[in-house]
Amino acid sequence: MSTSADQNEREEGLKFQPKFDASGLVTCVATDAATGDVLMVAHMNDEALRKTIESGEAWYFSRSRNVLWRKGETSGHTQRVVELRLDCDQDAIWIRVEQVGAACHTGRHSCFYRAVRGEGGGPRLSFVDADRMFDPTKVYGKDT
Amino acid sequence: MSTSADQNEREEGLKFQPKFDASGLVTCVATDAATGDVLMVAHMNDEALRKTIESGEAWYFSRSRNVLWRKGETSGHTQRVVELRLDCDQDAIWIRVEQVGAACHTGRHSCFYRAVRGEGGGPRLSFVDADRMFDPTKVYGKDT
Repeated sequence: MSTSADQNEREEGLKFQPKFDASGLVTCVATDAATGDVLMVAHMNDEALRKTIESGEAWYFSRSRNVLWRKGETSGHTQRVVELRLDCDQDAIWIRVEQVGAACHTGRHSCFYRAVRGEGGGPRLSFVDADRMFDPTKVYGKDT
Repeated sequence: MSTSADQNEREEGLKFQPKFDASGLVTCVATDAATGDVLMVAHMNDEALRKTIESGEAWYFSRSRNVLWRKGETSGHTQRVVELRLDCDQDAIWIRVEQVGAACHTGRHSCFYRAVRGEGGGPRLSFVDADRMFDPTKVYGKDT
């Protein structure tokens, strides 16, 4: 069990001690360094986090495929890390990146291409910044 | 088990069908609508998400306290939602907010007040934008 002193050290200290969850992961948010737009939310395990810090390129851990992956290794749409920060309790990472091409596997620049509004009748979605920058069937060779 | 048709509907459709994890949560990233800075990463359950959409104020679900909470209900540091988006597979939320005061319980504007660099000798942390906007012992009445 963590103590108040542990928490204070984690929040106010300069010691790198990422707090991975029960699956060994931290959440990572990637934003476009130029615009501030959120590009994607994904996960890193210890190895992905260390490779990202050492290489300056974004690495993630895929929960669905259960593998470490370098962003863009299939598509070529890599992310160069301009800055990496961690949050108060060291269980979330924010990277500001220069995105080559598009971040989303659907071909959009960002994974967040739909807005939700709630004026009467329940939540309604609409497309925002949803133009495709590539054809996913050509890049990944399958219909996504 | 979800099919390819389900996935396509979830990614390309305009039907609101958030995908909660085994704990009933989605990840939410809050950014400052003016600067694009990531303020915090937290979680929402179905009720928090719906209250956020309906009220235009950020609601979250605290995993540590196991309760629904309106951001700022203790501190007064509320978040007015300018725009809410969801990602391709509808398991992550991005809200652009107008933050009253500071987002972080430590008193900083953002929870991401430390940068990590990796030039030789392992990861090193440094404070960035780490000035406190309030004294947490005064706002929360305890030493955080």
